[in-house]
Amino acid sequence: MNKDELKNMLTMVANGTLSVDDAVTKIKLQPYDDLGFAKIDTHRGVRQGADEVIYGEGKTAEQISKIVSHILENSAKSVLITRMSEDKAGEVSRCVPLHYDSASRIGIAGEIRKKKDTGNIVIATGGTSDIPVAEEAAQTAEFYGNRVTRLYDVGVSGVHRLIDNAEVLSGAKVVIAVAGMEGALASVVGGMVDCPVIAVPTSVGYGASFGGLSALLSMLNSCASGVSVVNIDNGFGAGYLANMINKI
Amino acid sequence: MNKDELKNMLTMVANGTLSVDDAVTKIKLQPYDDLGFAKIDTHRGVRQGADEVIYGEGKTAEQISKIVSHILENSAKSVLITRMSEDKAGEVSRCVPLHYDSASRIGIAGEIRKKKDTGNIVIATGGTSDIPVAEEAAQTAEFYGNRVTRLYDVGVSGVHRLIDNAEVLSGAKVVIAVAGMEGALASVVGGMVDCPVIAVPTSVGYGASFGGLSALLSMLNSCASGVSVVNIDNGFGAGYLANMINKI
Amino acid sequence: MNKDELKNMLTMVANGTLSVDDAVTKIKLQPYDDLGFAKIDTHRGVRQGADEVIYGEGKTAEQISKIVSHILENSAKSVLITRMSEDKAGEVSRCVPLHYDSASRIGIAGEIRKKKDTGNIVIATGGTSDIPVAEEAAQTAEFYGNRVTRLYDVGVSGVHRLIDNAEVLSGAKVVIAVAGMEGALASVVGGMVDCPVIAVPTSVGYGASFGGLSALLSMLNSCASGVSVVNIDNGFGAGYLANMINKI
Amino acid sequence: MNKDELKNMLTMVANGTLSVDDAVTKIKLQPYDDLGFAKIDTHRGVRQGADEVIYGEGKTAEQISKIVSHILENSAKSVLITRMSEDKAGEVSRCVPLHYDSASRIGIAGEIRKKKDTGNIVIATGGTSDIPVAEEAAQTAEFYGNRVTRLYDVGVSGVHRLIDNAEVLSGAKVVIAVAGMEGALASVVGGMVDCPVIAVPTSVGYGASFGGLSALLSMLNSCASGVSVVNIDNGFGAGYLANMINKI
Amino acid sequence: MNKDELKNMLTMVANGTLSVDDAVTKIKLQPYDDLGFAKIDTHRGVRQGADEVIYGEGKTAEQISKIVSHILENSAKSVLITRMSEDKAGEVSRCVPLHYDSASRIGIAGEIRKKKDTGNIVIATGGTSDIPVAEEAAQTAEFYGNRVTRLYDVGVSGVHRLIDNAEVLSGAKVVIAVAGMEGALASVVGGMVDCPVIAVPTSVGYGASFGGLSALLSMLNSCASGVSVVNIDNGFGAGYLANMINKI
Amino acid sequence: MNKDELKNMLTMVANGTLSVDDAVTKIKLQPYDDLGFAKIDTHRGVRQGADEVIYGEGKTAEQISKIVSHILENSAKSVLITRMSEDKAGEVSRCVPLHYDSASRIGIAGEIRKKKDTGNIVIATGGTSDIPVAEEAAQTAEFYGNRVTRLYDVGVSGVHRLIDNAEVLSGAKVVIAVAGMEGALASVVGGMVDCPVIAVPTSVGYGASFGGLSALLSMLNSCASGVSVVNIDNGFGAGYLANMINKI
Amino acid sequence: MNKDELKNMLTMVANGTLSVDDAVTKIKLQPYDDLGFAKIDTHRGVRQGADEVIYGEGKTAEQISKIVSHILENSAKSVLITRMSEDKAGEVSRCVPLHYDSASRIGIAGEIRKKKDTGNIVIATGGTSDIPVAEEAAQTAEFYGNRVTRLYDVGVSGVHRLIDNAEVLSGAKVVIAVAGMEGALASVVGGMVDCPVIAVPTSVGYGASFGGLSALLSMLNSCASGVSVVNIDNGFGAGYLANMINKI
Amino acid sequence: MNKDELKNMLTMVANGTLSVDDAVTKIKLQPYDDLGFAKIDTHRGVRQGADEVIYGEGKTAEQISKIVSHILENSAKSVLITRMSEDKAGEVSRCVPLHYDSASRIGIAGEIRKKKDTGNIVIATGGTSDIPVAEEAAQTAEFYGNRVTRLYDVGVSGVHRLIDNAEVLSGAKVVIAVAGMEGALASVVGGMVDCPVIAVPTSVGYGASFGGLSALLSMLNSCASGVSVVNIDNGFGAGYLANMINKI
Repeated sequence: MNKDELKNMLTMVANGTLSVDDAVTKIKLQPYDDLGFAKIDTHRGVRQGADEVIYGEGKTAEQISKIVSHILENSAKSVLITRMSEDKAGEVSRCVPLHYDSASRIGIAGEIRKKKDTGNIVIATGGTSDIPVAEEAAQTAEFYGNRVTRLYDVGVSGVHRLIDNAEVLSGAKVVIAVAGMEGALASVVGGMVDCPVIAVPTSVGYGASFGGLSALLSMLNSCASGVSVVNIDNGFGAGYLANMINKI
Repeated sequence: MNKDELKNMLTMVANGTLSVDDAVTKIKLQPYDDLGFAKIDTHRGVRQGADEVIYGEGKTAEQISKIVSHILENSAKSVLITRMSEDKAGEVSRCVPLHYDSASRIGIAGEIRKKKDTGNIVIATGGTSDIPVAEEAAQTAEFYGNRVTRLYDVGVSGVHRLIDNAEVLSGAKVVIAVAGMEGALASVVGGMVDCPVIAVPTSVGYGASFGGLSALLSMLNSCASGVSVVNIDNGFGAGYLANMINKI
Repeated sequence: MNKDELKNMLTMVANGTLSVDDAVTKIKLQPYDDLGFAKIDTHRGVRQGADEVIYGEGKTAEQISKIVSHILENSAKSVLITRMSEDKAGEVSRCVPLHYDSASRIGIAGEIRKKKDTGNIVIATGGTSDIPVAEEAAQTAEFYGNRVTRLYDVGVSGVHRLIDNAEVLSGAKVVIAVAGMEGALASVVGGMVDCPVIAVPTSVGYGASFGGLSALLSMLNSCASGVSVVNIDNGFGAGYLANMINKI
Repeated sequence: MNKDELKNMLTMVANGTLSVDDAVTKIKLQPYDDLGFAKIDTHRGVRQGADEVIYGEGKTAEQISKIVSHILENSAKSVLITRMSEDKAGEVSRCVPLHYDSASRIGIAGEIRKKKDTGNIVIATGGTSDIPVAEEAAQTAEFYGNRVTRLYDVGVSGVHRLIDNAEVLSGAKVVIAVAGMEGALASVVGGMVDCPVIAVPTSVGYGASFGGLSALLSMLNSCASGVSVVNIDNGFGAGYLANMINKI
Repeated sequence: MNKDELKNMLTMVANGTLSVDDAVTKIKLQPYDDLGFAKIDTHRGVRQGADEVIYGEGKTAEQISKIVSHILENSAKSVLITRMSEDKAGEVSRCVPLHYDSASRIGIAGEIRKKKDTGNIVIATGGTSDIPVAEEAAQTAEFYGNRVTRLYDVGVSGVHRLIDNAEVLSGAKVVIAVAGMEGALASVVGGMVDCPVIAVPTSVGYGASFGGLSALLSMLNSCASGVSVVNIDNGFGAGYLANMINKI
Repeated sequence: MNKDELKNMLTMVANGTLSVDDAVTKIKLQPYDDLGFAKIDTHRGVRQGADEVIYGEGKTAEQISKIVSHILENSAKSVLITRMSEDKAGEVSRCVPLHYDSASRIGIAGEIRKKKDTGNIVIATGGTSDIPVAEEAAQTAEFYGNRVTRLYDVGVSGVHRLIDNAEVLSGAKVVIAVAGMEGALASVVGGMVDCPVIAVPTSVGYGASFGGLSALLSMLNSCASGVSVVNIDNGFGAGYLANMINKI
Repeated sequence: MNKDELKNMLTMVANGTLSVDDAVTKIKLQPYDDLGFAKIDTHRGVRQGADEVIYGEGKTAEQISKIVSHILENSAKSVLITRMSEDKAGEVSRCVPLHYDSASRIGIAGEIRKKKDTGNIVIATGGTSDIPVAEEAAQTAEFYGNRVTRLYDVGVSGVHRLIDNAEVLSGAKVVIAVAGMEGALASVVGGMVDCPVIAVPTSVGYGASFGGLSALLSMLNSCASGVSVVNIDNGFGAGYLANMINKI
Repeated sequence: MNKDELKNMLTMVANGTLSVDDAVTKIKLQPYDDLGFAKIDTHRGVRQGADEVIYGEGKTAEQISKIVSHILENSAKSVLITRMSEDKAGEVSRCVPLHYDSASRIGIAGEIRKKKDTGNIVIATGGTSDIPVAEEAAQTAEFYGNRVTRLYDVGVSGVHRLIDNAEVLSGAKVVIAVAGMEGALASVVGGMVDCPVIAVPTSVGYGASFGGLSALLSMLNSCASGVSVVNIDNGFGAGYLANMINKI
């Protein structure tokens, strides 16, 4: 349940279309539900302004289905599931209605939200191999109603591709820079824009990229101001944070 | 020169109080000035919405003074100098008017800006040893006109200190979490607020803290959403980014 | 053979129900038995107060069966086998009676001990993915007769889940805190209780968690007093140590 | 204020020798005092069973003196200050009565506690260079009233020195094993005793000891059960934890 | 061709049983043979006192067979092949006569040498999982004619197993200490003997053993004198070096 | 003695202006001279096409003077000394004529060479703090007669500074890219030019730059082709290699 | 399109055999083509003097085929595809004519270029396991028309194999030294030649080679001048750079 | 007390020149003496065949003097002190007769031993900066009566210097290879000789040498057989081990 849903419900209580008891049931006194194997944090919507998100990796299709159903019935109209394999998505979709995107491995259960009339989030990648992580960010941002512009394969070794898109970049309210290998994209983009840049190192590369460590260190040491970094391959985290900033 | 200063100048041109030639001289065709030992990026104010900032470490007092003078005469009304030792500050203040704060090692040359009427930036630290880095962030944010609330020494080993300040935290538009050792502050704060959290690992600690690596990794792996990370001890970067987000 | 069993046997010798020769055979002069491929440490029960435990990984089902049989016949009434795959458990159970738990991959051969009337061991996890490691700890502690309270999925990004369970935690004689990613659970719990906290970093996470290194460093740098750390994913070690402390 | 002091005070309230108002003043509603530069955690005594401890490194003599005075006046009868240089100790001792030990760099302000009639804590070191860290552990344990047996310079390269002391070791209720270089002491001791072993890696060594990393990894990988590890050079943490276990 | 074979051949030339031309053909002017995909170092026998050894990993069964045949025909009477899978051994044995040991994954082609009347090499392991690496060392040493005593599963957590074998150890001319996890075996053994100890870290372990790094660092930091270290899992290197020392 | 000097000398022998004996003395049979504490590699000029270079760090002024004198008298007309402190340079200049540059800490003894008519070497730096390393490269290249264009403080966070100098860069025969922090300069420059780029990571930076490791990994992972890397801060190596390539 | 092709085309325009419009179409105004999933950098031929190269790993056979076709039709006569598995090569060859080499996993589509009359590139490897990486370098260099001499299996443990080939090495214009394990080849070769040495660390080895890290560090620390390093296993990068240098 | 001294003493007992009581006093029942701050291992001479050696770093001149005096009076005729600064040596020499060498920082107290008639130990270094470590090895070996040949500054970048000394090397019974930077010396030497090579990585170098890590990894991965490694800068360990091997 997010803040808007909470306000709506309280308004219904105020004008008598919802009984106080039913409201209490919906809000619940304890801020989490205990499913036995997981304590669902039902108030995160209120506290953090975002519905429940499920990290799909390491959970069975059955566990995912149960948590999704529980949330949809109790606290939110839609659920975002990240890092869910195509196989699991197939199983889950037999229990709950699901939109699944195989590139980003993201599934959305419940109703799709409308685009909000907020600023633009630009998502840039260094190469084509970074696209899955970028899509995780993009789909997450879109899930929360943001407009997203994709600017893929604009790595710094052909810096004219970035310069050509300077206008797109400068129109952004937040930029997400996704890159593996040397991760230089974040610094170059950071120097071209007047807005926060969220850098996502990816594990793309080989040898001395050490599973994304090289890009991670690069981005942390960025000489451009306004750049901050999330975990390697953490497209979701970047998309979620971009939504937070864009809402402000 | 920031956007507002640019607009003012162009308005003066429009209404005849500034000649075109003088405007050209001020804007300059090349977006940087060459001082011989440094290319000052005079358009960064326009491009990035922030005046020139000088990283004081590794520069002599003489070099700092020259750059500051050049900027004040050509492109900005105030200059922020970070990581400047007390000795250098003394020398610089003989050449240009300077406000210096020894805790954060920050100096401000030129006129102090007025507070803007924007959201609140809350800066929390895990312990008292993290305060110098936190002050670097705080002073930077204040330099750009932001309101800053300091919440120091609220580390997670006495989590009630954080809970007691839940209201302060939830009223923030951005939170900066500054912590060394295990860096857990970012995760706990991240779970308590509905706004971006900028995590600053510090090199406070010993042994297996490996100069801030432990806190850095912790923060990158934060299980809370909305958390992003800047370089170890990079208070300036956090303050600058917080200002960017707060402006949106 | 543990201290109690040793005492019983010597009492039997004292009152004539066991001949000296048979006692000698049982105690054996050399404190280990040589099975050819392994030297079984038969006196560890006496020396360390615990029966033999078998680390199942890297041993064949046949080797496990032989060692278990040897121990059951000579020195102990029950044997704990850790890190045993479901397949191996199937094979072993054809040779010796075996209780097997697939979540913790722990098998117990021989008789199950009675719960002792000692303090309570609370085992907390940051998320649901940490449960297998937590169960290894829990089953180990229970094998030695301890009472165990499970507090799973109480990670610090929703710190109210921990606060709500403050009473459970403060009633513990030992707490085991199991967490991957940023491992902050140990510090927060450490600040809430008045008893030893055994921290178990897990390899849960991705990217900059570097296979548990991030959680490990976090826990070693804990700002809370009373926290010590065992190896990554070492649920057994934590359960065993908790039993040792609880016995005191 | 620890539990005993709290009980005493409440008893005084119960039998009328202390007014309710004065008791309230002493207990305070907020569980920490704000000195401006530090939030003193006055309830830690109640919550964690131990008086306030001050980490002296990075604090000025003046700051230490102020915090010590505040604690002695409000919540505890004695204060332990760790990692305090001889110079600072000199300055502090001009403000508050102080016992200072230069080997462990520990200072104790206020009254010295009586030895409790609990089990014995044995502290072993690999070499003579590990003694300062061992003394930090020893003095901390003694501060809380524990009996401590020192077993210094019994490193594993002359294993007979350990064997000779087997009886001392087996009489311990907790053992603290302090060693740098290869840190093997923890494993060998761990195999000789039937009680918890707290391993403290030290930064003693050179080259591939990498500031204590070698000993740290060794101890985490100990093949003996019942061993847990604290941060490199963290003698205080080990002594504090040993006290916790010994009290049980 | 080793030194003895060379001397024999030259003696045959001296007493006329071998023509100079045939001798020249055997010795060859260039000290390596070019097989196209490999330059076989035919003089290593002369230069280094050991026949050619083939590192089987990464070579096909066909390549191994060709190199073995070439060496047996030209320069040596037996060939040692290390790290050869059982499958490859099967294929190779169809081309050349081969003794294969699956534990050590070592194959020997050509004639088996007689035991020399030299000192004893003792090979000790910490646990049973270290045996494959130990056997690689043992079989290598035996290939060169050394007497080898195996002392397996004598890890330091049950140090009496080592003490019991003190006599065996002190009778050694060289000791090879093979251990994973914390690698403490090398230090303890190093302190018990009066001869060189070759330490072999193994990749046995999990979590913070980091693939053998923990044992490696431990062994390099050994506080016992006379210990040197070879690469992780390098049983062959240890066996070869032990032979070199034993020959002296 | 370089190839040209060798040819000249042999021509003098050919036309009788130098006796064979004197030539032999100059060339020497052994290709190095033994000064007791150092074996001077007199043939490196012939073999590698470059005169002797002395690495000044860790050598006393007296040792440097002796080696310089020996080389000047025997094999070369000029000597390059790198990493020599201003103090040592003062002492050395009392023994041999010396040109010293304090920025690069390079000294040149003997005669200064003429500029050759070869291609241009462009040396770019990310910031002003990288200049000492860049100057080491520049002075080395100039020592060997190359033309050098300096392009300092053109870091990627203000990428227009690089674009503006595209023509200078594209006219280079070799580019040396010197940068610390995230080291992105190498990749961006690498994508702009059609010639080899030698990347020099510098130890400029703090926190997660880990003494230059971040820039090093970045440069090794460069997505631009034609980039290779030398050691951290190795300006000499870059200048020397640039000369080699420029000569081809 | 490379520089020569561009010149030819412009000459055709100049002498009327190509219309201006057709020329414009060929050159294109934007320097990259957008295929949706990839922005092909069509001007890299002009800018960097080399045709487009495709990094095959992580791309599907279908994507490779599309990019190859697009390039062959628009900007270049031949395309180099690296790191392409045999399976993908089979699929690609059904769409475009393809020469494939399974050792180097390199495919060449379009016409094979003629050898240029430039200097010789010598490629040396330490062992036979380094050959695949060496072949990637060799085939790349040959693709651009260079003459390549292969010197495989000349590792430094039999340094006479290198000495014997001193003449081959000294005749090189560039040397590529490919080695795993300790990577010493680069230093020894670097000291033997008077030309640039490009060092390629390989991931060949085990244990403490840490996936090529050992060889990488070795090569970066080479005591020989003129050595620079590319990423682990980056044969392509070395071959490409060697071509650049050889062209000068 | 070493074996010879023990035999002599027992012989004196046998022929009546020493009373049993005095012998008992000299041998002592406990194999170490407790000086309060150090347990001197008096039987190491018997057990390990070498007199007591004192590691001087971290000990005060007073402590060193006391230990030396104790040993000289009780168990040995000479004592080796390593890593002792010149200042401490001055102080120690006022209490006990001392030979001090400032290059190796080694002091010898008591009588100098005679050279034994054993094999030759060759000690080679890569450069002149490695000499202090090499001298620590050399002086240690000479302390135990070995003949030592020094071969300094024969690094692999001028491999002819090694080839020229092939005869010296091949006459060795043990070789100690001391090198920093890339540490390739061990591999090249290892391939040239038929005896054990003890590799000593040094911390000589900068940047990516990471304090000796680069040389250490190189040496562990040596492709030559017969090479083993001791800790970074551990000249003493190498000299001691060389003596052990040479004695065999």
